[in-house]
Parts: sequence; C-alpha cells; structure tokens
Amino acid sequence: MNAAPSALRDRKTSIISLGASGLDRGVESSGAPLTRLHWQPVGDGSPEVAWNLAQLIGDADDADCLGSRIDRANAQVLERILAAQPTWVDVAAHASEIWPDMGRTLLHAGPPIDWKDMCGPMKGAVVGAVLYEKWAASPAEAEQLVAGGGIRFAPCHEFGAVGPMTGIISPSMPLFVVMNSAAGNRAYAPMMESGGARTLRFGAFAPEVIEGLKLIENVLAPCLKAAIAGIDGGLPLKPLISQSLHMGDDVHNRNTAATLLLYRAVTESLLKSPVPRDIVQETLRTIGADDMFFLSLSMAACKAIMDAAHGVPFSSIVTAMARNGVNVGIRVSGLEGQWYVGPADVPVGLFLPGFSEADANPDIGDSAITETAGLGAFAMAAAPAMVQFVGGTPQDALRYSREMAHIAIGRNPGFTLPMLDFIGAPVGIDIRKVVDEGRRPVINTATAHKEPGMGIIGAGVVQAPMKCFVDAVAALATIAVS
Amino acid sequence: MNAAPSALRDRKTSIISLGASGLDRGVESSGAPLTRLHWQPVGDGSPEVAWNLAQLIGDADDADCLGSRIDRANAQVLERILAAQPTWVDVAAHASEIWPDMGRTLLHAGPPIDWKDMCGPMKGAVVGAVLYEKWAASPAEAEQLVAGGGIRFAPCHEFGAVGPMTGIISPSMPLFVVMNSAAGNRAYAPMMESGGARTLRFGAFAPEVIEGLKLIENVLAPCLKAAIAGIDGGLPLKPLISQSLHMGDDVHNRNTAATLLLYRAVTESLLKSPVPRDIVQETLRTIGADDMFFLSLSMAACKAIMDAAHGVPFSSIVTAMARNGVNVGIRVSGLEGQWYVGPADVPVGLFLPGFSEADANPDIGDSAITETAGLGAFAMAAAPAMVQFVGGTPQDALRYSREMAHIAIGRNPGFTLPMLDFIGAPVGIDIRKVVDEGRRPVINTATAHKEPGMGIIGAGVVQAPMKCFVDAVAALATIAVS
Repeated sequence: MNAAPSALRDRKTSIISLGASGLDRGVESSGAPLTRLHWQPVGDGSPEVAWNLAQLIGDADDADCLGSRIDRANAQVLERILAAQPTWVDVAAHASEIWPDMGRTLLHAGPPIDWKDMCGPMKGAVVGAVLYEKWAASPAEAEQLVAGGGIRFAPCHEFGAVGPMTGIISPSMPLFVVMNSAAGNRAYAPMMESGGARTLRFGAFAPEVIEGLKLIENVLAPCLKAAIAGIDGGLPLKPLISQSLHMGDDVHNRNTAATLLLYRAVTESLLKSPVPRDIVQETLRTIGADDMFFLSLSMAACKAIMDAAHGVPFSSIVTAMARNGVNVGIRVSGLEGQWYVGPADVPVGLFLPGFSEADANPDIGDSAITETAGLGAFAMAAAPAMVQFVGGTPQDALRYSREMAHIAIGRNPGFTLPMLDFIGAPVGIDIRKVVDEGRRPVINTATAHKEPGMGIIGAGVVQAPMKCFVDAVAALATIAVS
Repeated sequence: MNAAPSALRDRKTSIISLGASGLDRGVESSGAPLTRLHWQPVGDGSPEVAWNLAQLIGDADDADCLGSRIDRANAQVLERILAAQPTWVDVAAHASEIWPDMGRTLLHAGPPIDWKDMCGPMKGAVVGAVLYEKWAASPAEAEQLVAGGGIRFAPCHEFGAVGPMTGIISPSMPLFVVMNSAAGNRAYAPMMESGGARTLRFGAFAPEVIEGLKLIENVLAPCLKAAIAGIDGGLPLKPLISQSLHMGDDVHNRNTAATLLLYRAVTESLLKSPVPRDIVQETLRTIGADDMFFLSLSMAACKAIMDAAHGVPFSSIVTAMARNGVNVGIRVSGLEGQWYVGPADVPVGLFLPGFSEADANPDIGDSAITETAGLGAFAMAAAPAMVQFVGGTPQDALRYSREMAHIAIGRNPGFTLPMLDFIGAPVGIDIRKVVDEGRRPVINTATAHKEPGMGIIGAGVVQAPMKCFVDAVAALATIAVS
C-alpha cells in the first residue's frame, strides 16, 4: 500500500479541480498541471432543491417511478414539437372576432400582472391601447380609467396568443392566425408596427403611434387577409423558417431573410388578387421597410408548436417563457394552468446613441417563445451577423447554440445550423436539466426604455431567472408525493 | 563548440520540416515531435520562373525598381476596386443596341476560342443562339453555318461584358447594364434563363430553351427596363451585395438573399409603374422562382469594378479570370490586351442524380469575375450553407476565405464576413503572390455536361491553373528588360 503515493509522485500527474477552489493553490504549488472545471452544487447547495430534483430523475430499472414517467412524457412532447406544422392561415380583422367576450380586456406579455405593478413601457402601452380603442380621450383619462379598475388584464399566453415586448392586444387589433396543421391548434399574434423607435409594443402612445395602429387595422390587415386567402392551404412557416436559418436569421431578433421570403409570398398572392394597386403598394412598402416584420409570424408559429406540446401529464418541458417587464414566467407541459415566476434581468448588450443600461427596462415580451421552440438564442449559430445588433462576437453566437443543447431534450432536424455542421437546433427546455446544470436559458431581445412613452433603446442578451425552474421542479416533485 | 550537440540532445527539441520530406523519417526515429509545413519551391523549382518572379519583387530602398513600381500601381488598383460603386442603371433591349456593328457575332465566355476547339456545351449554346437569331432553321443547318465561318466569335470580356457558363451573347439578347458610378465605366451581362437544368448557358438548345430566350426578350427585359427606370439613380449593387454576404450568399453560386433583395426593389418600382399587372406578375414570378437570378447582376457589378482597375501600367493584379470550357484565361491590369491561358480543370463537388465526374465538362464561364472581385470562393466564409450545393464542409468555406487572403493585396471593408469576425473579404489577386506561394485561386462553380444539349449536372470547387500566372509573371518581367 505504501507504493501508491510514491507511484503518484513519480508519474506524470494532471489535476482536474471542480467546485472546491480552495484546494487549487496547494495543487498549483505542486507544479502539476491544473484544469478547473465549472461546477456548482444543485440549487446553490440547497438540500431541498437537490431532493426535489432527485425525485424527478428516472431510474432505468423502474418504469413506474416518476422520473421514468417524466422521460416518457418528454419523449411524447418532443415528438409533438417535431411533428408540428405551423401554417399562416388567416388574419383576424379584430381580436374581438376570436374572443367575442373580450369586452374591455387588454392582453399583455408575460405572466399575470396588475396595473399597479406594471413596468413603465407596459403602462405606456396600456394607455396607448385605451386611446386606440377610444375608451378614453387623453392619456390622463386613460390612466384614471385603468386605475379605477375599468380594464381587465390577462396574459396573451392564456388566450393562445403572443405579443412582442409589452405585447398589448386590444379588441380592435387585427391578429395573424397560425394553425399547427399537425395538431389542429391555433395561435395568434398582433402585427408588427412600423414607425421606427416609437411603437406601442415599446411603450409609446403618441398620436402617430395610434395612427400607425389604425393603418394596420384599416390597410395592412385587410390586404394581408386577402393575400393569405389567395395562398392555397396557407403559407407553411416551418420550411420558411428553416430556409431563413440558412440565410443568417435566428427568427427572433433577426428576421431579415424571413421577412423577404414573406414579402415574396405575399407579393405573388396579391398580384393575383383583386386588391387595388395602391393598397398593395402601401402594404408591401410597409413590410419591405421593416426587416423585423416576420417576428409576429415567427412568434405565432412557435406558440402554435409549443401549445401542442403543452398539457402532457408529467412532462418537465417548458412550453412558454414570457416576460412582463418585471417578472419572467414559465409554463411547463405537465403543470397545466400554472406560471412559475422569477425577477426579470436587464439585458446586456448594445444601446442606441444617447441611451445606457440606466435607461433600460428589465426583460420584456412574449418573444422568448422562439427560444422555447428552439429558435432565437438557441439557433443563434445561424445568425452570426446579429451580434452587430445584440452585442458579442460570432463565436458567442455559436456558443449559445452549443450551450443550450445541455438543457434541451433534443434537436430539431427541421431547423439546422450550417456553421455547426448542419446539426439541428437544440429544442425542448427540460426544467430538470436547467436546475441540474445550473444553466439558465439564454434569450436574445430588444431593450425598451423603462419610462412609458419612450420606445426601443437597444438590444442584447439575457437569461431567464433560475427561480422559475427551481419552483417548477418543486411543483413537479409534489406529484410524486400526491 | 562541443557543447552544442549535447545541449541539443538534452533539451526538449521540436523539429519543423518543410520541403525535404526525405529527412522526416530520421527525425521521427529520434522521437522529437515533428511538424511538417507545406512548402514547395517557386515554379516547382524552375529557375526561369524564380528569376522572372524575383524581378517583380519590390526593393524598399529603390523606388524606381520594377517591383516598387508594381507595388505603387497595385495600391492604385486597390484604391479603384474599393472606390467602385457598381449600380444597375438600365436594361438594353438588345445587345446590338450597345454594339451596333455586331452583325453575326456571338460573344462567349472565357478567353478567345475557335468553333473547332470549343467544348460540347459551348457548341450547343452556339447552335441555340443561331436558332434563336433565326440565322438557321435547324441545329444541323446551324452547325453548317458556323463550320463554314459564317459566325464571328469574340470573348464577352473584350466587349465589357460577362456571361455565365457558356456565356453566349447574341445580338437580339437583352443585357443588364451596370455602371460603376465612381469611374463612369459600364458592364453588361445577359439575364438568367429560368427553366431548370436545360438552359442555353449550360449548352442546351431544345425548342423550349429558345422559347425561354424569347420570353426574356419580350416580357422580362422590357418589364425590368421599366423597373430600373423607376428607381431614381439606379439600384446601388454594392450595399445590396454587402447585405447579401450577411445573409448567407457568396453572390457567385449562392444568390438567394441577393435575388430576394432585388425582387423587393423591382416590386416596389413596378407597383409605381404603368406596366400591366399580368406582365409584372410574370416577371416577378420568374425572378421569384430562381434563387440564382441575381448572378447576372453580381457578375456585371464585378466586371464594372474590375474593368475600372484594368490598364494601370505595371500592376500585377488580375482583373479577370474566365473559362471557355477548355482553357482558363486571366487578364492582368498592367498587361492590357493580353490573355494568359492554361488548361481548365474539372470541378470537384456534387452531382445531380444520374451524373458523375465522367460526364463533367471542365470549368466554364465568366462568373469567376466574382472571385476576381473578392466574392465567390473568396467570400465563401459568408455562405456556409452553400457547401450543400458545391460539396465540402462549412469549415472548408471558412478556409477558402482565409487562404485566398494569402494571394490578395487587400481586403474590402465594404464586403465583410461575419463568421471571420467581420473582416473584409480578400480582394485583388496578385500574380506574384500566386506564383510565389504556389497557391492557385479557388473558384466555386456550377458544372455543365460535356455533351452539347444536356445542361447542368452539378456544382463544385475548382482552381485556376498555375500556367496562367506563371506566363503573366514572365510577361510582366519582360517590362523590366524593355
């Protein structure tokens, strides 16, 4: 037995250290090469988190244990995600067509939130929507109406809808209708406003913002309704998104190619339609001037994919990540009807001239549905040029896609990433993996000014808070007990 | 002195070997780590080539030596390349409008070649062009006419034009007109035929090929002439190409994004024009159905750039690389009026089902003007998805762009490559560097069937033959003597 230490001394020794950094100094002084690996105990060392997680881990020899049930449920969820065929099928002239009982309801981005708790840009957008609906004649009147409880609020996600940034959907707003033709479910998203920095979705409510919404309602929406009516069977969005990934888009914060592909499809249809030339011209000018126009359809497509994956008992897969500008909330397939929330971080990235992090609102919008469906930051390896918008380097873009594979249950062979040798983008965030790895989902995002009425001030990268996932793991663990 | 060998023995020794591979075995048996570097003597060891090259190398202390003059001339050439502003300004209804004395002339791709020496696809395209011009009523009659000397042939390049693949331009064909608004020179290219595999440019001449050419002449060309007339000052192609490089194009064998950007610009103009809706529809349908439609404009843009760089005395920069399917020819800025030719290789790459390398014609077409101007394979790092068309891996795409920097005099800050940290694409092939490094320019290309009448059979990557560059170096060296 005495031979062992001396053998260790005499042979070439390399040390791998993980966790216990206090010992590194001693190893270093021995002269042996030291490789430090990042590791931290589950739940930052909380025995409760570790215990909850342990109950969700499958035992290959026990098909009836909770972990094995979760594994089977997740396989089914992945199947549904990969089978989804989101197709743009219609434009609803008004949201109230889809939800006749809306009344004075405003849908908003992220998990549930009351007026008094809303962030600046969301309050601004609420005021704008009230003015747009003519429920009030001035911003002051609008605030009074809302403060007096005259408006009901609900998350878009609970209505099968998604809204970018503040995500406000009011009864008169037209909506894109996307059907998942594999499962038959539908998803909805409002159209992207043009008009530069100041738009309702970024919390602006000036008269020109309201005019922009009216233009969408009166010109763009009827024209696009005619366009999609002219496309037999609708416009399949999965191949369009797939092609866009080969053209430098991540279809979250870069939609340049996807918008051009949409532009071409809409043009071809409109030229066959009876829509007057000036309306066609105005509509195509609007789409052609906004490289982000496709985002609404991308979000609705991802919502249509993930809603079909929601509600599979025992599944630990995230079916929505959404931010209201205060909190981030996630929905989990096997935990129907629940939100798990944590505080939203401020995105780190680039700012428009004259703005800085001090002006930035925390992470906001339903657009992280794209990351939930394996696009956005998860597919950022497809979009190296996007780092000029959100910051970082092309190598960061590759890294996000590689790292997110650690917390995903699979890869989507329909969404391939050329620079990673055409491997499929990672898809299906498993709350168990997030907690186990201590690795939070990355989201790329635009940044809104924190004050109402201001607008977009930059773009960057942010991560969903760990609390959402820890709480969801705890909730799923209670199923084991019950 | 005796200490040296023993010091060498006792210290950790690494060996770098270059050239003399015969010694590697001895080094390996010594156990020292061996790194082999690729190196070969200039001109494969020919003293004549080395001597010619030596005369062209600058001496910093002698501003009057030939090498220093070449360096100064090349700096001027680079300035002209970077200053170029290729702009699509017009469509000529017929080539004979531009060259009224054409008569029965056919322009062709690559350096000069006689009918009897032409490859199969070029012969096929000549027959097709004769039928299209109604100079003969049948393929047999057409061949008879040509064999009897009834047709004059000349390279497109000598007329300020470029043609893809066989590159045949006949008097009735419409041409894109691109102006370099920085220098005022113009360049011309025929429009891309649609119609799948069988087109005149790939050597097909069946009745439907001739009908396709008539459609271009009678529908597409007048409509696109109206479209560009409606764009004030023309369509600037440099920003369009620049944007396409950020969207996965190399604008040689991948033009998907560039074609969509063109589609949008043409649509916007046509909707404002008095062109009837059915003509607009037919034109946009044609452009929309062919992701390579932009190639003609890319080639004309590159020709407009490189012609402005041609004719600078002493410059050793290549201003054209062009292939007639038998030979590759280059033109050099300081060697006006001359072609330097070498035998064309067969592209290595992918084939359509049912075809193989045995069916492939050697490298053909004027489209290598894109590589000459720093696009195509030189910018292939921008187009990783293209390897699905030409073969290889995304890493090869990065490697081509990196390697071509060794033979280029500069980088184009207007054409940046996201995956290489937004560095400019290498531009300006210096014949001295090609010969000195023993590194031939890489060209990506489509592959034509070697028999007339067949069409496209695949795509791949090829290199220009060293002989062109060795001969051009010899010619430039004679200036030193004269």
